[in-house]
Amino acid sequence: MIVTLTTDFGASEYVAAMKGVLLSMDKDLRIVDVRHDIAPGNVTEGAFALFTTAPHFPFAIHVGVVDPGVGTERRGLAVVCEGAIFVGPDNGLLMPAAKRMGVKDVRELTNPAYWRHPVHPTFHGRDVFAPVAGHLCTGTKVADLGPSIHDPVDLGFGTPETTSDGWRATVISVDRFGNVVTNVPGPEAEGRWAYGAPVRIEAGRRTLAALFVRTYANAPRGALLLTVGSHGFLEIAANGDSAARMTGLEPLASVLLSGAPS
Amino acid sequence: MIVTLTTDFGASEYVAAMKGVLLSMDKDLRIVDVRHDIAPGNVTEGAFALFTTAPHFPFAIHVGVVDPGVGTERRGLAVVCEGAIFVGPDNGLLMPAAKRMGVKDVRELTNPAYWRHPVHPTFHGRDVFAPVAGHLCTGTKVADLGPSIHDPVDLGFGTPETTSDGWRATVISVDRFGNVVTNVPGPEAEGRWAYGAPVRIEAGRRTLAALFVRTYANAPRGALLLTVGSHGFLEIAANGDSAARMTGLEPLASVLLSGAPS
Amino acid sequence: MIVTLTTDFGASEYVAAMKGVLLSMDKDLRIVDVRHDIAPGNVTEGAFALFTTAPHFPFAIHVGVVDPGVGTERRGLAVVCEGAIFVGPDNGLLMPAAKRMGVKDVRELTNPAYWRHPVHPTFHGRDVFAPVAGHLCTGTKVADLGPSIHDPVDLGFGTPETTSDGWRATVISVDRFGNVVTNVPGPEAEGRWAYGAPVRIEAGRRTLAALFVRTYANAPRGALLLTVGSHGFLEIAANGDSAARMTGLEPLASVLLSGAPS
Repeated sequence: MIVTLTTDFGASEYVAAMKGVLLSMDKDLRIVDVRHDIAPGNVTEGAFALFTTAPHFPFAIHVGVVDPGVGTERRGLAVVCEGAIFVGPDNGLLMPAAKRMGVKDVRELTNPAYWRHPVHPTFHGRDVFAPVAGHLCTGTKVADLGPSIHDPVDLGFGTPETTSDGWRATVISVDRFGNVVTNVPGPEAEGRWAYGAPVRIEAGRRTLAALFVRTYANAPRGALLLTVGSHGFLEIAANGDSAARMTGLEPLASVLLSGAPS
Repeated sequence: MIVTLTTDFGASEYVAAMKGVLLSMDKDLRIVDVRHDIAPGNVTEGAFALFTTAPHFPFAIHVGVVDPGVGTERRGLAVVCEGAIFVGPDNGLLMPAAKRMGVKDVRELTNPAYWRHPVHPTFHGRDVFAPVAGHLCTGTKVADLGPSIHDPVDLGFGTPETTSDGWRATVISVDRFGNVVTNVPGPEAEGRWAYGAPVRIEAGRRTLAALFVRTYANAPRGALLLTVGSHGFLEIAANGDSAARMTGLEPLASVLLSGAPS
Repeated sequence: MIVTLTTDFGASEYVAAMKGVLLSMDKDLRIVDVRHDIAPGNVTEGAFALFTTAPHFPFAIHVGVVDPGVGTERRGLAVVCEGAIFVGPDNGLLMPAAKRMGVKDVRELTNPAYWRHPVHPTFHGRDVFAPVAGHLCTGTKVADLGPSIHDPVDLGFGTPETTSDGWRATVISVDRFGNVVTNVPGPEAEGRWAYGAPVRIEAGRRTLAALFVRTYANAPRGALLLTVGSHGFLEIAANGDSAARMTGLEPLASVLLSGAPS
């Protein structure tokens, strides 16, 4: 069985403790780190990491812990999908990935028989989510974890506001190359804009010119561009430069994109 | 067999070389990274990482390499415990974790038959500690590694100085959320202070007010608090903020904590 | 089968997607991260990571993705060696490691039957190199991937310019301890300089005095030194300090080293 881990813990002993708990329950399971450098408490960035990676895995249990509400009354979830089970807090972290893969059942984690005791109030990753994943690896049925629920928190990535010639979008994620992922679905951009046409980017006080292109190499060296990234969303990039630096955009920022009609 | 790695090497080729050596000796062993971002040469921070994670693992060989004295006469050790063997330099890195798990035997690494040659004077991680761990995985007896010794270096985490209403403590570790772990054992704090009572924090020139609480959510949003962390030590935190930023505390700093009697 | 990964992707979802693709093809393969923090687009630094680590592994497929030319006409390669196959872009990333291990055959990746479709123009790591590695793990013959070629790009690490008493060298890599690796082969330095003798370092506008020593401990505390690192190259270091900070040297910088004859 494969268990993936996505957290905002950094490369810390918190992650290692979760791995120890998992291996104590099933010494043969395969643990894969997805990301641990999610900005502390940034649920959207964590949701995006799960959304982009889970579909590439064979059947796996994906544990997500970006959990600013730990220790409060927020629920814990196990979301059963086609080819995957997601385990983590009920705060919007799991649902975009789960819906992409096809949700079959959402269970609230209420049965303490599958937790590690005493449960520390600030470390459900080690004491609730890892043990639940370990039990699922060793044959526990999802139905034993708790009751089905029908109202999991689902923030998606937000819906960009459609304007006459584009969108007011939100930044989901910025990678280390400075590529800025927006929440505009790629197919929608392809439906409204022509490849090769100019797009105006308004970010804070900056107004910048870019081209909507199929791939980086189709834009001049150093120029801003918009393209559909490998994740399926509209991305602001620069051919050989950092779009994040050029635009000043950061995760959760707002940006106005105005293109030529296709 | 599981081998864990805790180093100050960063995510570098040094770590990968150790993994290559280990897998060359036993291609089926499981390697788990605990931490590689220990501040260079900070033995206390490395000891804390081993101390907090080793008890969560099933039987494992824990290799630690935070080794500012590499190339000098400091000894190498294999420390046999209940459920674990620790391998690394004799500089205080291994003993807090080993004592927590129950020390049965401490061996000095003197037998070069179990090392990789030529041993590079600045890379015992690759040439001594990884090969020794690999040999232990493949059946070598601890007694063959070298003689028993009875005086391993053991710095613990220091003993906080007891004051009339609290402690002068030392910072062991700071995590990426800005939580500041002190060397005051949690049960001692619970024995002397009442939950809900105020504590005064004196850090450098700053004097700050905090509450001693059971969990973050019991303190007002943005307020400093003291709580017993998931690692069992007294921790300075802030509900939704960074206590490290608010107090200016860093690893190895001194802090005076004065509470109300329980 | 063991697959190692060396990229400039950071600890990102890009790496996790590659792991998902690999595990989808062979759920039993072992994935080892070498480095993902290569400076974006720094092919030399990536080549050095592969060069220093690959020889320590048992038979493995080493996937390297530092690929500023992705989406252009640069070729993809599978380089068959004694004890290893290297897979990645034809830009100099793979050849230093491959030559160190003994090149037997170089294949250009032209057969799309072994790729993941649609191939995204900026993510050959996920859609070309990972699937090719996965196919090699599951029995595909190298000859099926594409034709043999005889002109792979090979930049080596550059050849330092010999001067009357040393070299004008280039910095290959800087580690987190501030050790500065140059492209001067260690045996050449040992052939020309005497251990214990002084060396003058000229880096930018700074001129600094150092000693050529066998190990860090042979230089005074805090002093600059030159030594042959565990990787086999001449390295500028400081006993208990950061040579990178003291010299201002960064990867790809030029440095003049002038020693006393041996």
